[in-house]
Amino acid sequence: MQIVIIGSGNVAYHLAKAFIQNNIHLKQVFGRNEKDLKEISQELNIPYSTENLADADLYIICVSDSSVENVSQLITEKNCLVAHTSGSLPKEILIGEYRKSSFYPLQTFSKSKELDYSKIPFFIEAENDEDQKILTDLASKISENVMKSDHEKRKYIHLTAVFACNFVNHLFSKAKEISDSQEIPFSYFLPLIDETVKKIHEIEPKSAQTGPAVRNDTRVLELHEQLLQDESLKIYKTMNHSIKKMYQLP
Amino acid sequence: MQIVIIGSGNVAYHLAKAFIQNNIHLKQVFGRNEKDLKEISQELNIPYSTENLADADLYIICVSDSSVENVSQLITEKNCLVAHTSGSLPKEILIGEYRKSSFYPLQTFSKSKELDYSKIPFFIEAENDEDQKILTDLASKISENVMKSDHEKRKYIHLTAVFACNFVNHLFSKAKEISDSQEIPFSYFLPLIDETVKKIHEIEPKSAQTGPAVRNDTRVLELHEQLLQDESLKIYKTMNHSIKKMYQLP
Repeated sequence: MQIVIIGSGNVAYHLAKAFIQNNIHLKQVFGRNEKDLKEISQELNIPYSTENLADADLYIICVSDSSVENVSQLITEKNCLVAHTSGSLPKEILIGEYRKSSFYPLQTFSKSKELDYSKIPFFIEAENDEDQKILTDLASKISENVMKSDHEKRKYIHLTAVFACNFVNHLFSKAKEISDSQEIPFSYFLPLIDETVKKIHEIEPKSAQTGPAVRNDTRVLELHEQLLQDESLKIYKTMNHSIKKMYQLP
Repeated sequence: MQIVIIGSGNVAYHLAKAFIQNNIHLKQVFGRNEKDLKEISQELNIPYSTENLADADLYIICVSDSSVENVSQLITEKNCLVAHTSGSLPKEILIGEYRKSSFYPLQTFSKSKELDYSKIPFFIEAENDEDQKILTDLASKISENVMKSDHEKRKYIHLTAVFACNFVNHLFSKAKEISDSQEIPFSYFLPLIDETVKKIHEIEPKSAQTGPAVRNDTRVLELHEQLLQDESLKIYKTMNHSIKKMYQLP
């Protein structure tokens, strides 16, 4: 099977790397950003182009959600399979006469970070069983966790990931803002953060909740509110309100 | 030095265990809850009492913030040092004629979880240099990270921890609510969560931010809002608003 990856960002890079590490040949990486493409091409030894999209059996589109539709129209072949890698788009966003599918890796990708690809869940949706099998077999060469998922389910997977990853990271940013303001090294908090996450591998997060809100410790909650302003204060109030609701506190 | 721990909750248990593992003798664990005291006593081979507080050179109070003041009045000795373990209380909350101090371990404690005590930062505040040294030496037998911290700084440390630990855990609870509602196993999200945290050991959280808000992806943000209600929707809007503010997006 001849495979082309379209895109040169974090997802494209890591997916290409995962393929190469698992001895899956890539015919080309295609995109607009020559500098990024060149880097991927050199590191992983894959031909690249910014102009001539190679013929392939499978195109995997790894570009931002807002560009998927436009990019999909570059593929003029008919007898091929095209997959996007977005958590929030239906496969019908793809415009062309080819077979359409979604190949969604649930992970947060940064170019500079090494990743264990075998742990990344892949969610697959295709038009028919044959394509479903092609993509499932392909993802299974990379990962131990490959599952079927339609667009409806994928939307909720993506939404869950926003809470569990994007918002969590933003809380780390806000936490660091507070500790920076007092010249307390943020590294002091890393053992606590590590433990917070280790816990939920063993205990339900609902059972692992600690802190002033779940203890209904009004004194501390009021003290903290006096130390905060603006967005931090809004987050503080919103999160505590939600914690109290979850544990049915007054 | 004769040490007594007052309390039988998670902090008391783990602090006692950390002392015993590092060959620091404990004279007694004292508290109200006989069942919990008995468990600690048997596991760690420390005498316990619910009635007769033993004489000691150092009392470490490990009870909830709201009980610290009352419990501190049980100590009638004068020539001793008393420490509380709260992140948000001043040492002056302690009522008695003894020397007052704070001995604050920055960690989230659950009884059932094994912990690497050497990584837990301890923040110490005492009335004088001698007591500061006693507590610093003691904490240094357990941990590699022992620092001086007055009440003002401790308040901010605690507040940072609420964002980085308590609120993060609540986001995991809310994420699990969403995935449960669609019968998607929450375990699928653990590799993503692990990676989110591994990242900030290497990159500033502000540089690691991903997701629809920082991409200013209005389509996805609107789609997600339609899938949410109540507290989850409030959290979604508050977090995205704060992310946009941090990255100066419209």
